[in-house]
Amino acid sequence: MRPVKVGLLGLGVVGGGTWAVLTGNAEEIARRAGRRIEVVAAAVRDIEKARRLVGDAIAITSDGMALVRDPDIEIVVELIGGDTQAFEWVMEAIRQGKHVVTANKALLARHGNEIFAAAHAQGVMVAFEAAVAGGIPIVKAIREGLTANHIQWLAGIINGTTNFILSEMRVRGVSFEQALADAQRLGYAEADPTFDIEGVDAAHKLTLLASLAFGIPVQFDKAYIEGIANLAQEDIAHAERLGYRIKLLGITKRRPEGIELRVHPALIPAERLLANVEGAMNAVMISGDMVGATLYYGQGAGALPTASSVVADLVDMTRLLAADPEHRVPLLAFQPDAMADTPILAMAAVSSSYYLRLRVEDRPGVLADLARILADSGISIGSMFQEPHGENAADIIFLSHEALEGDIDRAIAKIQTLSFVKSKVTRLRVEHLS
Amino acid sequence: MRPVKVGLLGLGVVGGGTWAVLTGNAEEIARRAGRRIEVVAAAVRDIEKARRLVGDAIAITSDGMALVRDPDIEIVVELIGGDTQAFEWVMEAIRQGKHVVTANKALLARHGNEIFAAAHAQGVMVAFEAAVAGGIPIVKAIREGLTANHIQWLAGIINGTTNFILSEMRVRGVSFEQALADAQRLGYAEADPTFDIEGVDAAHKLTLLASLAFGIPVQFDKAYIEGIANLAQEDIAHAERLGYRIKLLGITKRRPEGIELRVHPALIPAERLLANVEGAMNAVMISGDMVGATLYYGQGAGALPTASSVVADLVDMTRLLAADPEHRVPLLAFQPDAMADTPILAMAAVSSSYYLRLRVEDRPGVLADLARILADSGISIGSMFQEPHGENAADIIFLSHEALEGDIDRAIAKIQTLSFVKSKVTRLRVEHLS
Repeated sequence: MRPVKVGLLGLGVVGGGTWAVLTGNAEEIARRAGRRIEVVAAAVRDIEKARRLVGDAIAITSDGMALVRDPDIEIVVELIGGDTQAFEWVMEAIRQGKHVVTANKALLARHGNEIFAAAHAQGVMVAFEAAVAGGIPIVKAIREGLTANHIQWLAGIINGTTNFILSEMRVRGVSFEQALADAQRLGYAEADPTFDIEGVDAAHKLTLLASLAFGIPVQFDKAYIEGIANLAQEDIAHAERLGYRIKLLGITKRRPEGIELRVHPALIPAERLLANVEGAMNAVMISGDMVGATLYYGQGAGALPTASSVVADLVDMTRLLAADPEHRVPLLAFQPDAMADTPILAMAAVSSSYYLRLRVEDRPGVLADLARILADSGISIGSMFQEPHGENAADIIFLSHEALEGDIDRAIAKIQTLSFVKSKVTRLRVEHLS
Repeated sequence: MRPVKVGLLGLGVVGGGTWAVLTGNAEEIARRAGRRIEVVAAAVRDIEKARRLVGDAIAITSDGMALVRDPDIEIVVELIGGDTQAFEWVMEAIRQGKHVVTANKALLARHGNEIFAAAHAQGVMVAFEAAVAGGIPIVKAIREGLTANHIQWLAGIINGTTNFILSEMRVRGVSFEQALADAQRLGYAEADPTFDIEGVDAAHKLTLLASLAFGIPVQFDKAYIEGIANLAQEDIAHAERLGYRIKLLGITKRRPEGIELRVHPALIPAERLLANVEGAMNAVMISGDMVGATLYYGQGAGALPTASSVVADLVDMTRLLAADPEHRVPLLAFQPDAMADTPILAMAAVSSSYYLRLRVEDRPGVLADLARILADSGISIGSMFQEPHGENAADIIFLSHEALEGDIDRAIAKIQTLSFVKSKVTRLRVEHLS
């Protein structure tokens, strides 16, 4: 069969990786796909730089719009990132009847519904394995591998930068600031790390995973997002002493009233596999009603792992290019006419266990007062320990049983008014993942 | 669209689970697949028992051959196990132009080449996600998710019974016999556990994984198989002290001279995720040249997890029933005309690190003599420790660097002739998985 003709938007880190995979493993890919996948053109900002990478083998342009309109190109691979120019070019590619592969989570989390609707109307495919968890085939696992299940929940370490920082804070005992500086020096964090450390990148990915798991539209604006910049070293140490590790998790859960959609640091039991995912690695745990818990682990970023997923999408597409749309897997795992409008729950309605830490005057009756407030709010305590701080103060740490976040927040507001409480109450969520 | 009509061979554990998944999650599955999947008939040994399970909803027969010839049935799901009757019925189903889903690793490991050739000739699909690692979508991950990669190696815990036994031996310090008895009492091991504890079941699965990873024919007869029945509690304890855990691994590796294909107990570093897979769970680690190492974890057996994979195959098939064969994923990941005849390596040519334990007389010069023999065989020692045993004897444990198995075996043969060596040398392989 004749080769499939692909146009690349972008030849940066992931674009260069995609070029390297498609050329380096051309034989092995053709052994599987049954035909070759050829990059015929690329649109880039720096034409000289692109020429040094790919030589004269393909057409290079600085005009992305011209590339997506090139009648010779069957699949457009969008790897420029961002959500303005990428959005324009992807929408035009779809209007031109081209299939699209993208690694752009920000684009899909913010404009996914529009893009998927346009693709459906035009009868083209949009694939995005590389947008979530890099080289891990997690989109395929949810969309196809677990298709027999009601997905109940999933929880993932889906941002390598923050996982690297949290690993460093735990293993080396350094502060957040120090760990971030190390991550930047080693290339695990960007010069402006805001999107990573504030949880925005993880929330982009989680939004897509929730759509795939539950058949709901992409709703990034309803995701709760809390990053790791305020995490204190002492909470990581306390967590460890209690048998937990702190990870930045993206969590989405189906509950009778709606769907939880949240990114935040969480204590997880140290014996769980997810707690043992260290450094810049990613992992996603998914629970289905039939299969139980499954877990998927690998590199969540980097040129070649991400390109591995881009090319897997290209091979899938290559097989189905000439097939009727009915033979394809639905873009968001569910048939377009079977999407649900299940509401996303407000955080006050979210259910979790909690870790609370506060500093108090060390005098009789303090614990009784605190326990009374928690009990009155319907919050039951699983364990507690106390650590002297100087002569007259102590730090108290509570681990609660499962409670509504609204209840815990009301209890904390009351505790905060007590005269013997000398600090802001630190509140972290605890996820048992079972 | 009209429902797809499925016939079940077998309504036992996995057959009953498949019935439960297809009926219990019918709505969710149809939301994804776009059409219903209906079981219209089942062939069983005990018709009364089957009627109690499924009522009068479907046709029940004791004649499997009649079922696979029923012109109304589009997909045959084989869940009876074994490789004689199952082989006959599956081959007849293929001759009848029916697609086949099976969970039967023994059947495919022993007759896979014949079955896949017949399916290719007839233009039908044969899917077997449930045959390896139960509910984990590992076939799909290799065949599609990692399709851009040269797979370099994979190593898996793919037998839950033996992993449960090894977990018990380590955590509770019991003997193999005690752990096996517990596993039988708890339903993790069968009354006749031979296939599991001798590694045959794991080798069946590994054989299939190797074909998917490397594009080679199914070659169960060339797999090296060593079970866990001879594992001593003291080796598990020594391993732990050295920072390792012992797991029964299925390992297959691409090397310049050929492919390693082997099932045996192995020491793996305790900090690896694979070392932390406990109880009856399964996990497979796969290394690709582009993606690096990825890992897949979940329940490897049980009615519902296995049925989850059976139904995932049914949904995939449902989409592609009316499509041209070119739109399908190749049965064994590679195009039939692109299969390789790479040889399977003999164990003497396999490369690994080794753990050696032996009892010696405790007198000067013993260690020097042992070290000399190892050095003369080209084996370099990574670490060693010695433990007194009574007044005049000591146990010596060596960990070697990577060596050829032929070299280590020649060295052991020499050591075994030394007059101060009081025991048979225990030799276990060490896998660093990196």
